[in-house]
Amino acid sequence: MNDPVMDDAGLPEDAPLVAVRRGELVESVHRGRFAVFDPRGDQLEALGDPEAYVYLRSSAKPLQALPLIVSGTADAFGLTDEELAVACASHNAEEPHVAAVRSILEKAGLSEDDLQSGAHPPMYEPEAAKLVRKGEEPRPIHGNCSGKHAGMLAVCVHEGYETLDYRDPGHPLQRRILELIAEVCSVEDDEVLIAGDNCGVPAFALPLRTFATGLARIATGEELPDHLVDAAMRIRDAMLGYPFMVAGTGRFDTELMGRTRLLVKGGAEAVLAVGDPEGWGMALKISDGSHRAVRPVALAALDHMGVRVGDGDSIVRGLHGETVGEIGSLI
Amino acid sequence: MNDPVMDDAGLPEDAPLVAVRRGELVESVHRGRFAVFDPRGDQLEALGDPEAYVYLRSSAKPLQALPLIVSGTADAFGLTDEELAVACASHNAEEPHVAAVRSILEKAGLSEDDLQSGAHPPMYEPEAAKLVRKGEEPRPIHGNCSGKHAGMLAVCVHEGYETLDYRDPGHPLQRRILELIAEVCSVEDDEVLIAGDNCGVPAFALPLRTFATGLARIATGEELPDHLVDAAMRIRDAMLGYPFMVAGTGRFDTELMGRTRLLVKGGAEAVLAVGDPEGWGMALKISDGSHRAVRPVALAALDHMGVRVGDGDSIVRGLHGETVGEIGSLI
Repeated sequence: MNDPVMDDAGLPEDAPLVAVRRGELVESVHRGRFAVFDPRGDQLEALGDPEAYVYLRSSAKPLQALPLIVSGTADAFGLTDEELAVACASHNAEEPHVAAVRSILEKAGLSEDDLQSGAHPPMYEPEAAKLVRKGEEPRPIHGNCSGKHAGMLAVCVHEGYETLDYRDPGHPLQRRILELIAEVCSVEDDEVLIAGDNCGVPAFALPLRTFATGLARIATGEELPDHLVDAAMRIRDAMLGYPFMVAGTGRFDTELMGRTRLLVKGGAEAVLAVGDPEGWGMALKISDGSHRAVRPVALAALDHMGVRVGDGDSIVRGLHGETVGEIGSLI
Repeated sequence: MNDPVMDDAGLPEDAPLVAVRRGELVESVHRGRFAVFDPRGDQLEALGDPEAYVYLRSSAKPLQALPLIVSGTADAFGLTDEELAVACASHNAEEPHVAAVRSILEKAGLSEDDLQSGAHPPMYEPEAAKLVRKGEEPRPIHGNCSGKHAGMLAVCVHEGYETLDYRDPGHPLQRRILELIAEVCSVEDDEVLIAGDNCGVPAFALPLRTFATGLARIATGEELPDHLVDAAMRIRDAMLGYPFMVAGTGRFDTELMGRTRLLVKGGAEAVLAVGDPEGWGMALKISDGSHRAVRPVALAALDHMGVRVGDGDSIVRGLHGETVGEIGSLI
């Protein structure tokens, strides 16, 4: 395989993207890189090195959901678009999310107990507080990845794969996901680097360029092998149709999908995947992993691409509600 | 006044300090700068530009507490060392912290209702959960700055200053704090830049070099004007005597002070102040404001200074307890 492009310390080339201002000074700064490619793999925009690798983390979820369609699982179990959307989600564990995850499991003849997504408190603070008040511990179904895991389990049941070890990188489902990602992004299997994601399934790393190209293909259906076109369009349309199911109240992915016709999926350590059904894919990584930097950069980058969503800069308020600073794009 | 030293975008020169690794790759990186100076203002170590400004945020608290001693307030009200330590704290709102803050207020003839520190949930998660279970909203006394505010109020009562507007930058107490910071760090009053801190009192910015020099003086008592030596030693010894009161369970400041004889005070946006009573002060700023980067850099920098506390690198664990990555110093 090719060596991942990084400098001697393993650091990709990046640029200052966001300033956190307080009073007269920049108090903190976020660096990063982004790349916009069309489905043919031609570069439309880039800042920083588009060849350097990036872990896709949860922004890979739309790709990880493709087997649900390709294998016929979604049709066989009668999964709804809401359920497909939650299978691509980093959800808030609000009631509709948890209900949709439970429904996928039930349709596959499984239950909450089969989930191996690991437990963490609901991402949506009021839901987390609700569990605390009830004296309940968070369960795997509350984890933001439980829809992805439910989808993976459903494919295993439909395909006759073992469900106990579905998280293993050598499991036939995980091998199939790797092949699909490589195919969509036009890289060799062994050019995709694999590590562990926090929820226990493989985490994939690719050059930013190839991920942006893959996103362009998923969003447009163009330049995909025939057997993947319908799957890509079903996943895209489920997410676009149900932005709430992909994240939830107060979340940037949900907001941005609701205000545009763009496919949007964020990931841990401040990765963002955007796909325009009209023709391109954008992959963004904030170098330090800070989520507060994603929104201002994303909206500024979209503005460069002619998608005018509005100003992504935000006021920082003190505990008395007063303005103490501003988080603003430098691009 | 001099222009703050920054580049055209207002960004200080910094360097990669911490790598967040996953699998074979660096997934995220934190940049920053630090400076170590002796009490005379001579540089012992530096990485990045020591002349560029930094907001001290809560790492200024030991300096903001000096008026408690200088004015005679602490003696007049019989404040204990635990109470002086909590006046320098960004505390967890654990029971001993809240009790000490309440005691300062009572000794000054005031109550919780006089605090204008703003409310946020206790920094210590179990205390935050306790409030949720009781159905109580967080109050200003639970805010990490409530000890600082109680100390400020006590000085106002003792000095006959108005207590209603004590947060105002023009209030005599805040003017006095500004003068003390300038005096300790050997800068002119108008070289200290002032903005608003999140708790509503002034936030101060100084060149990193001058802050490190001031910390060296506070930690050693050397090169201070005579009228500040006793005050510095009382504040230092209160913090060193009661590291728990300065932060709390699981907090880096408390741990590091407990394991060394160093004065340690962190601040928002990933600032760290360290003072060695044997002769130097260190000021550290992580450029992007990420707290997870402070510990590995601080311990590596201390190692350079001959203080061997141990390895500050840490394992990142997934939701199943497995190792998925590592946060490690690059210096």
